[in-house]
Amino acid sequence: MTGDNQILLDHGSGGRLSRELTVNLFFKHFGNNILSAATDSAVVPTPGEHLAFTTDSFVVDPLFFPGGDIGKLAVCGTVNDLAVSGATPLYLSAGFIIEEGFLLDDLKKIVRSMADTARSCGVKIVTGDTKVVNRGHCDKLFINTSGVGLLKSSHKNIGSGKGIKPGDKIIINGGIASHGMAVMIARNELNVGGNVISDCAPLSGLTGQILKATSGIKFMRDATRGGLATVLSELCENRKFGIEVAEEAIKIDDNVRGICEFFGFDPLYVANEGKVVMVVAPEKAGSVINIMKSHKYGHDVSVIGEVVEKHPGKTILKTKIGGSRMIDMLAGSQLPRIC
Amino acid sequence: MTGDNQILLDHGSGGRLSRELTVNLFFKHFGNNILSAATDSAVVPTPGEHLAFTTDSFVVDPLFFPGGDIGKLAVCGTVNDLAVSGATPLYLSAGFIIEEGFLLDDLKKIVRSMADTARSCGVKIVTGDTKVVNRGHCDKLFINTSGVGLLKSSHKNIGSGKGIKPGDKIIINGGIASHGMAVMIARNELNVGGNVISDCAPLSGLTGQILKATSGIKFMRDATRGGLATVLSELCENRKFGIEVAEEAIKIDDNVRGICEFFGFDPLYVANEGKVVMVVAPEKAGSVINIMKSHKYGHDVSVIGEVVEKHPGKTILKTKIGGSRMIDMLAGSQLPRIC
Repeated sequence: MTGDNQILLDHGSGGRLSRELTVNLFFKHFGNNILSAATDSAVVPTPGEHLAFTTDSFVVDPLFFPGGDIGKLAVCGTVNDLAVSGATPLYLSAGFIIEEGFLLDDLKKIVRSMADTARSCGVKIVTGDTKVVNRGHCDKLFINTSGVGLLKSSHKNIGSGKGIKPGDKIIINGGIASHGMAVMIARNELNVGGNVISDCAPLSGLTGQILKATSGIKFMRDATRGGLATVLSELCENRKFGIEVAEEAIKIDDNVRGICEFFGFDPLYVANEGKVVMVVAPEKAGSVINIMKSHKYGHDVSVIGEVVEKHPGKTILKTKIGGSRMIDMLAGSQLPRIC
Repeated sequence: MTGDNQILLDHGSGGRLSRELTVNLFFKHFGNNILSAATDSAVVPTPGEHLAFTTDSFVVDPLFFPGGDIGKLAVCGTVNDLAVSGATPLYLSAGFIIEEGFLLDDLKKIVRSMADTARSCGVKIVTGDTKVVNRGHCDKLFINTSGVGLLKSSHKNIGSGKGIKPGDKIIINGGIASHGMAVMIARNELNVGGNVISDCAPLSGLTGQILKATSGIKFMRDATRGGLATVLSELCENRKFGIEVAEEAIKIDDNVRGICEFFGFDPLYVANEGKVVMVVAPEKAGSVINIMKSHKYGHDVSVIGEVVEKHPGKTILKTKIGGSRMIDMLAGSQLPRIC
């Protein structure tokens, strides 16, 4: 790598320094023939099923947090968006917007983290782009990842939940709210210790295993920005069914719960980066739970509620003390820049 | 749209304001069933050929310039990357990173411009994402577009130029360097008037027509960052052939040339956003030129040179006064943030 340890404007110029950064860093770590061909578009074979295509920009602050970094997050976020659509994630793009002066060592760590995460879930980063903006014109580093996956025709309604019926079970693969709290603590906005680690993880292995082994998966969505509450609200909005969930079935790590309570965050609205909400036909719920229990990203699974005929369009939380509370969409921003 | 005319942090929160922005602005303008399904990934049919996949982030400053804006640029840039790979562009993603306080009216103009441009070349924006960062943490607006297109097997080496041979003709669809100069003038860094308009245009119509009508297209690339010189240098780098181009055949608008000369920019290195460099078998050059001449984005076509056996790996410019000059890759940044 030419020069010192900082990203220079010339690293984004399209000239020699850009090329060096691309070859010596991105090609090196993301290494695959499709990317290294350095054509303007990646060219990949398609076996002729449906295609899933998604995009996400990542602006998390700070870039490194317990349990992950912006690179791991950028791969997991897009892989998970594909996975919960019922697709097998295959190819990712990576678009970097970097502030002049950013430390090359930090960029290397992040790129390695992206490469490791992509490898762990069998996806290839096949195309990319780098822009560098003047100091002060972006905050360190933003990453966009877009992704392409293949989808069987029989799974193509999983993203929209067309087949959902009253009686279907609502399942989540573990405890909520750790990602948002881990980032907040790392940001030092919460001046507390506390052993809170982000749940950031790629879920395509888990969802793929479930889709292969069983039918009856009506809907999946990862509970990211806006948290579990937002997934449930959006799920029944303008639909002919309602949702009932039991507060006591929703798991929250004690450390996470303590920090949420102390600072007045509602954990239902705090972002996760490794949690999938599934709606499953009741007769298939048992086999889904069995698969999850033996998977590293699902062993803390619980059935948190079900789809109901009453109060269509509304999600009701049955509280531990026997009350009921309507769960609405997030009205404002609790936690900016957590992804 | 709730609230006043500014983007608030809550527009990127994943909550109600995000949803309103998505539905009332993005869905409205990009309107198509695939996007409006609002699933985590767009699901699209694939007819089973090869897939082209590309990404680009756009950080152009200023956002509006003669001949275009960041939205038109973001669609053209990715459409062109697909087109020059020999693909038919089909689907785009749009990822917005917006500074808190950005004017909603400006965002609307930009989104309309994206929608109009996408419609004009028959592509659909099928998935998207919005992040808002605090004031001062990005410069107004950055847009990432990724794109998917379909590619016939017979065209899959066009992006890499595998079939290039000595004797092949090098063709460009018009005059160079207008985009970079138009942006610089709009930025007021060049305190001059001058009627310079960016060439920003979607080239998929032109390339599609040529690929349909003729064979013998060995290579295509759009001459964006780094300009025509960078395309030519990269084209023959580490290859067994050289390139010779004639300075007098490379067209440059008089206004553009004047501004370049006055300020010491070499127009060969200045970015274009509507120029494609093609390498064409000599016996097919005539029909390519005929098609270009009757197309609105190609009527100013010229044959600028050819592939040669001598000086492999090098591009030589034959100057007007009879000299020779080696064209190397851009060593540094002439013009930051022109795309």
